[in-house]
Amino acid sequence: MAYQILDKGSIPEYLNGLPSVVEVLGKGKALDIEEVGDGNLNFVYKIRRADAPERSVVLKQAVPYLRMAGEEWPLSRDRMTFEIRALLAYNDLVPQFVPKVYHSDEDMSVLVMQNLDNHAVARYRMIEGEVFPNMARDVGDFLAETLFRTSTLGMESVERRHLMQQFNLNDELCKLTEEFIFTFPYMEHESNYSNPATDEYARATIRKNTAYKLDILKFKELFLTKTDALLHADLHTGSLMANAEETFVIDMEFAYFGPFGFDVGKVIANFLMCYTSHFYHSDDDSYQNWLLTEAMTIWKRFEQRFLELWDNAVGSALLLEGFLTDDQLKEYKANFMRAIFHDSVGFCACSLARRTLGIAGVADIRDIEDLGIRSQLEITNLKLSQLLLSVHEEIHTIDELESTIETFYAENNPGLVKQKVGT
Amino acid sequence: MAYQILDKGSIPEYLNGLPSVVEVLGKGKALDIEEVGDGNLNFVYKIRRADAPERSVVLKQAVPYLRMAGEEWPLSRDRMTFEIRALLAYNDLVPQFVPKVYHSDEDMSVLVMQNLDNHAVARYRMIEGEVFPNMARDVGDFLAETLFRTSTLGMESVERRHLMQQFNLNDELCKLTEEFIFTFPYMEHESNYSNPATDEYARATIRKNTAYKLDILKFKELFLTKTDALLHADLHTGSLMANAEETFVIDMEFAYFGPFGFDVGKVIANFLMCYTSHFYHSDDDSYQNWLLTEAMTIWKRFEQRFLELWDNAVGSALLLEGFLTDDQLKEYKANFMRAIFHDSVGFCACSLARRTLGIAGVADIRDIEDLGIRSQLEITNLKLSQLLLSVHEEIHTIDELESTIETFYAENNPGLVKQKVGT
Repeated sequence: MAYQILDKGSIPEYLNGLPSVVEVLGKGKALDIEEVGDGNLNFVYKIRRADAPERSVVLKQAVPYLRMAGEEWPLSRDRMTFEIRALLAYNDLVPQFVPKVYHSDEDMSVLVMQNLDNHAVARYRMIEGEVFPNMARDVGDFLAETLFRTSTLGMESVERRHLMQQFNLNDELCKLTEEFIFTFPYMEHESNYSNPATDEYARATIRKNTAYKLDILKFKELFLTKTDALLHADLHTGSLMANAEETFVIDMEFAYFGPFGFDVGKVIANFLMCYTSHFYHSDDDSYQNWLLTEAMTIWKRFEQRFLELWDNAVGSALLLEGFLTDDQLKEYKANFMRAIFHDSVGFCACSLARRTLGIAGVADIRDIEDLGIRSQLEITNLKLSQLLLSVHEEIHTIDELESTIETFYAENNPGLVKQKVGT
Repeated sequence: MAYQILDKGSIPEYLNGLPSVVEVLGKGKALDIEEVGDGNLNFVYKIRRADAPERSVVLKQAVPYLRMAGEEWPLSRDRMTFEIRALLAYNDLVPQFVPKVYHSDEDMSVLVMQNLDNHAVARYRMIEGEVFPNMARDVGDFLAETLFRTSTLGMESVERRHLMQQFNLNDELCKLTEEFIFTFPYMEHESNYSNPATDEYARATIRKNTAYKLDILKFKELFLTKTDALLHADLHTGSLMANAEETFVIDMEFAYFGPFGFDVGKVIANFLMCYTSHFYHSDDDSYQNWLLTEAMTIWKRFEQRFLELWDNAVGSALLLEGFLTDDQLKEYKANFMRAIFHDSVGFCACSLARRTLGIAGVADIRDIEDLGIRSQLEITNLKLSQLLLSVHEEIHTIDELESTIETFYAENNPGLVKQKVGT
């Protein structure tokens, strides 16, 4: 239907016209509609049946401006088009890890989907030190299923180009990533975050380091030109909703075809930034130990499941049956996974720096009020970024990565204690 | 207008309705229409004004079947859609190197364009030993202009994704390349060409060589997933029309966004296969010396012009002004060109093998009647393919490439003499 902005007044009639939503909420029933404020870009409503609140949906709608800033900040509604397409694709590929879609309408920029009332955004709970026993395993599986099954190993060539065609024009959000992840943080730019001691460190090291900057460009070029698979492209701990049993991935408006390592490296980086923040948030290293184990589990599970899918694949674009002997295939698989690993480590390093120096920080650290404490944690992340980028082609296994990170943190423990007052 | 197949009877009325064509031919004038038979896929007509034959155009139309095989072999007309889009893009980028478009119609699958009566297809003249003084220079310029100016260095990000969107669905022809260049020739496949001594050599060497086959897969993966720039994607000496002064590039129906090195390596490979064939076609090495010099000129000119364009570029997707210092930029450019060089050598090696073992050979060799002579030349090309693929990351300059090839040919001179009788 033609675009119109929905509100609490018009939502009931809109939903009543959608049979698939009526199945969930019932027809013509009184609804409790709550606008939930955590969306900066879009309007998001939780809608519950008044007489049976367990029957509920979430409605998300893009408006042609930036929600947090108001109508004076125009913003294309295309972001919802790509979120709809990605969520529908993920409902096919990994229904166990994404909200069920009850209704979607690209013209209306509307998604009506499963309400995840029993799940929390992982980032904030991780700052508090909550353990999610299955989350890393689930994220590894999500990555393997979505990346393998949209890659040249998991799809036939023509069908794959048609899927790519649905996402190629997610151009505005790709450009945001190009600039805010791969460009501005490494140069002087007005959009960057500022904290005096952190700025000083960045100027004296990162921004002068030729090898580092050329590696950043290498990963920017991959982001711009490599179409390995359909990426979530914004996979961090704020895009995960979890509880003790289940994990859901949300907010896929950045989805496009890009390099394998980007999703993998980005989510691992967010576990590591949480690790760094717990030098402050925790009294001991027990939660940090859990975080590091889980970050490594993401890769281990991803690799294991990716190879399982490969074992069972037939008729892909890249590898025709009979092209390689069994021995050749074994070597090829090992090389292939190592290349993804190297890229993942590299993209992880980019994320560590961009979330430290760029406009968008992580709440794990940016929400700490004391600039001096923050700066110690930020510099730790920048050092880790430089270390990982410098070794990204030299470490070949997840165990090497784990020990590299362990040694790094042992040598770079800022020895902070959480200031309970005022936080 | 709605699709209909044109013929000599209906062409005059069709052209009379096109003001831009009437400008060339005049309105309502008697026309001489000649079907020219060198298109296997499409119908191609040369159309001249009867009273002024220097006023002429070429009309090319795709029919929904394979022209050479007839209506029983259906084939999508999409190939003409992509040829039209590429030719229009090239008319903007490099008007000096492509036929001028008078009219195009995607629905009718029709192109009306400049008649190149004063130019010959280079391949057949090169077999005869004709020297084209400017062709290699022009091809280098064509490559630099088209590749740079559609790359992340030459375009802004959003605009570039919109251009890519026009070519991403050239899926059927991409699939042909994937299979016929990067897959079938390296395995036993019914589509492959057969010549007993060549087959035996291929089975004993190439198809057993793990390093070689893994490298072929590396380049296949690049072809499938790297979107460096808008490629011609079928750039060989049969796609060049030239005379002593000018060079035109034709037949761009395979155009899509792919890796830089593919166009560069492919056209160089076709010069090298012509070199190999002149062990038979020539009485001495004078033409071969010219061919090798020119093949190297293609790269030299490409690199020089690419870097000139880069010097003058502003505001690209990849490199924002001020991101690198001058020294960093210098190092980055050197690395960037070296990576294109490595890939070009690799793609060159793929072309040498596929044109030898695959269904589509080069007339330079396949038109030689004697299977034994042909086989000696074919095995020479297969040896060169293996050599180049094995060193593609070890040679870093065009001079190293030239001396590698010179040494190779000196050591692999089959010592043939052209059999004038029967050819």
